Amino acid sequence: MRIARFSIDGNVAFGAVEGDRPDELVLDIIKGIPFTDFELSGTKVPLSKVRLLPPVLPNKVVAFGRNYAEHARELGHAVPDAPFAFFKPSTAVIGPGDEIQYPSFTEDLHHEAELAVVIGRLCREVPRERVKDVVFGFTCANDITARDVQKREKQWARAKGFDTSCPLGPWVETGLDLGTASDLTIQLTVNGEQRQLGRTSEMIHSIEDLIVNISEAMTLLPGDVVLTGTPAGVGPLHVGDEVAVTIEGIGTLTNKVVKRG
Amino acid sequence: MRIARFSIDGNVAFGAVEGDRPDELVLDIIKGIPFTDFELSGTKVPLSKVRLLPPVLPNKVVAFGRNYAEHARELGHAVPDAPFAFFKPSTAVIGPGDEIQYPSFTEDLHHEAELAVVIGRLCREVPRERVKDVVFGFTCANDITARDVQKREKQWARAKGFDTSCPLGPWVETGLDLGTASDLTIQLTVNGEQRQLGRTSEMIHSIEDLIVNISEAMTLLPGDVVLTGTPAGVGPLHVGDEVAVTIEGIGTLTNKVVKRG
Repeated sequence: MRIARFSIDGNVAFGAVEGDRPDELVLDIIKGIPFTDFELSGTKVPLSKVRLLPPVLPNKVVAFGRNYAEHARELGHAVPDAPFAFFKPSTAVIGPGDEIQYPSFTEDLHHEAELAVVIGRLCREVPRERVKDVVFGFTCANDITARDVQKREKQWARAKGFDTSCPLGPWVETGLDLGTASDLTIQLTVNGEQRQLGRTSEMIHSIEDLIVNISEAMTLLPGDVVLTGTPAGVGPLHVGDEVAVTIEGIGTLTNKVVKRG
Repeated sequence: MRIARFSIDGNVAFGAVEGDRPDELVLDIIKGIPFTDFELSGTKVPLSKVRLLPPVLPNKVVAFGRNYAEHARELGHAVPDAPFAFFKPSTAVIGPGDEIQYPSFTEDLHHEAELAVVIGRLCREVPRERVKDVVFGFTCANDITARDVQKREKQWARAKGFDTSCPLGPWVETGLDLGTASDLTIQLTVNGEQRQLGRTSEMIHSIEDLIVNISEAMTLLPGDVVLTGTPAGVGPLHVGDEVAVTIEGIGTLTNKVVKRG
């Protein structure tokens, strides 16, 4: 099931996305929130009539660095033996169609297409065999990075945590098992031109590894998001660009880059 | 004014702390939340009868590294030219008297006493002269760190973001101006023995510098917390230790270290 979050008539709701053709998608409004048992209301609205929001509002976004060997190499780094993680704050999250604001403190804004895992349950110290039980679903993410700031500053709070640096969406796909999610095509285009192309099977540390690793240290909450690293091909974004992340079996997350006003 | 957050009869409330002698402190319950204009209810409860909670529930904690020269040197690092920041997640926050859980993934847990700045207003790109307007007050923090993990992992999400790694409290002192807050004694004891002693005047980058730096990149929300770095003297904690951070004009934040269950 594809679960979207959207605003309609000033209210925020979740809905199940139905249909196949992009221009004919319909939302069946969910009663309540989708992290527990829920019902579809049967009330349907065309997706084209609503504004999609970030599909979840995470308390925290945990992102893993250098989890695709080709990407580590393209930035001149060794492939890390163990995963390492950083945070993106909730204030960085935007939804599909929202604008990425090019901040004034960088001159080298980069895109990084990533598979995002959405957590469905409060959990800590998750054993490998239970990871499947705490995963709610998957969405697309763009780990927008001020590459020059990242190179200068030892920790990446500013380089990867600025406002609008975490586009998520367009919805959460809950129907993929971990095996399927671990072998999907992930691609990114800028103005329709392909820049990144990889498969989630190229991850150095698997989705299970990453959830075990981070939950060993900290509690994950329903709606928290884990970013799993980006394949090779990262590169600059400019004001006016339209950047789109497409993951097989999930969908396409499109955002435009604007100057921060 | 000293503003505490506490639970009483299963409810959570804020209160103004009145009195001087530690065993005679009284809370005057605040109507509503203290970030806007508020009134004292006149209903008073002895502080000894309630459980103090973290004085704020931050959306994010932004912490600055190596902001005291002596501390940078004691870890063998150069003094950084520019501030650099990392995040601690809200799941790491505990209050005064709460237990620091020694996680299983570290064998070298360290204390780091820090002055914490509590943000009072939604703000971004705060000019230096407006910093005073966005600061709600100050509290004590202990930036608990898995030093061995910090050395191994390039980014510090696990080393400094695990559950219970961010004790805050005992309350927020709102009566200090920036000048006063920038020249306070900060000390830390373990089992009554002094381990860290410094003055906030020794910060390399001032409180104003830090708020300007981080707000240049991201929106700060009411209740967000900025940690300003730790003076020299960091060292190990062991299960059973009682660690106390005392900042002149604010108060004492005490926590006990237990084995994570």
